[in-house]
Amino acid sequence: MKIYKEKITFKSTAQIEFIDITNEVAQVIENSGIREGGVCIFVQHTTMGVIINHNEPMLLQDFMRVLYHFAPVDERYSHDLFEMKKNNKTDGRSNGHSHCKAMLLGASVTVPIENGKMMLSELQSIFAVEFDGSRNRDAIIHVNG
Amino acid sequence: MKIYKEKITFKSTAQIEFIDITNEVAQVIENSGIREGGVCIFVQHTTMGVIINHNEPMLLQDFMRVLYHFAPVDERYSHDLFEMKKNNKTDGRSNGHSHCKAMLLGASVTVPIENGKMMLSELQSIFAVEFDGSRNRDAIIHVNG
Amino acid sequence: MKIYKEKITFKSTAQIEFIDITNEVAQVIENSGIREGGVCIFVQHTTMGVIINHNEPMLLQDFMRVLYHFAPVDERYSHDLFEMKKNNKTDGRSNGHSHCKAMLLGASVTVPIENGKMMLSELQSIFAVEFDGSRNRDAIIHVNG
Repeated sequence: MKIYKEKITFKSTAQIEFIDITNEVAQVIENSGIREGGVCIFVQHTTMGVIINHNEPMLLQDFMRVLYHFAPVDERYSHDLFEMKKNNKTDGRSNGHSHCKAMLLGASVTVPIENGKMMLSELQSIFAVEFDGSRNRDAIIHVNG
Repeated sequence: MKIYKEKITFKSTAQIEFIDITNEVAQVIENSGIREGGVCIFVQHTTMGVIINHNEPMLLQDFMRVLYHFAPVDERYSHDLFEMKKNNKTDGRSNGHSHCKAMLLGASVTVPIENGKMMLSELQSIFAVEFDGSRNRDAIIHVNG
Repeated sequence: MKIYKEKITFKSTAQIEFIDITNEVAQVIENSGIREGGVCIFVQHTTMGVIINHNEPMLLQDFMRVLYHFAPVDERYSHDLFEMKKNNKTDGRSNGHSHCKAMLLGASVTVPIENGKMMLSELQSIFAVEFDGSRNRDAIIHVNG
């Protein structure tokens, strides 16, 4: 058995953004030399999630709207008072809604690997989903086989 | 260490349907000969999710209703315009809501294995959840130990 | 390759409660002696979920409210009729909403391990999320590396 880990870095450019990291994950698997096994994509952030779905821009916009209804940015979040207090000023990040959306999606996904490739179908892409950008972000790519 | 993979196939018969695949997954584990480890159930679809819960028909109906409110089928999804355009006709699949529900649930679950059995409690079943049926579907069962 | 499993037990004291089990999971990893690999936290319950996020009490309260809107406790769930029928009395657990919330969050999370430690950032804690307490509960901690 072999375990291989690599951190990939990327940059979000909007408050809410779907960042397609499929190619970067595929590159790590190639770097690992592992042909059969699985890969876990894990984000070390609390306002970012990871999902797998179709990279179709209008669909991603639909999903943003659905997530908006789940945890609207314009409702009151007690956490936002915490952010203000923590910084002892009024310009803390009002990101209660961002955490809620991140909890909904989860911080990791796992994909099987066969012949050195992820077993994704043609329509499946891996997204790091930013909910509190823009920021520098990263993800741990953990391959084993 | 051993890795064993098998694809199981099944058929959905309704637009939205919970398909209990627990027995099929258990069979793959038996086929693998692996006694200690874990199993990852992964669907290569973008309008299907995977969950673990109680196989109680009224509960599953409750959950369908909750998911309906999360991403109502009778709202407008920009993705549905994409589907129409893609096919250059008006009978593309209006499945924006299906993708949204699939993203919510996720494409995989992982279950530990002990003595050749999944460590599920009596009330836990594994479901492939169809959101855009009826169709032939499949899932990758990835056992390692 | 090594596989190590341990069951941890804990007690919820409210109907809905976020129980931080990060230290207990870290202890199991130490017990395992595994330095490089991954850990899967799996709950064998159908009214409990597992998430990773910030242990900030006001945020957790925000998330409870968001989950309340997702599956309100004061709506009607057909499953609650099942519970009444099952027990042939009127004091079955009215926990249709609890199951729905648990399905939303999922029964497991996976975290990479490096140098014997989970690769969590400072703000990330692991929570078993109780939706039908108070009860004795447990989780399977499955380490491999």
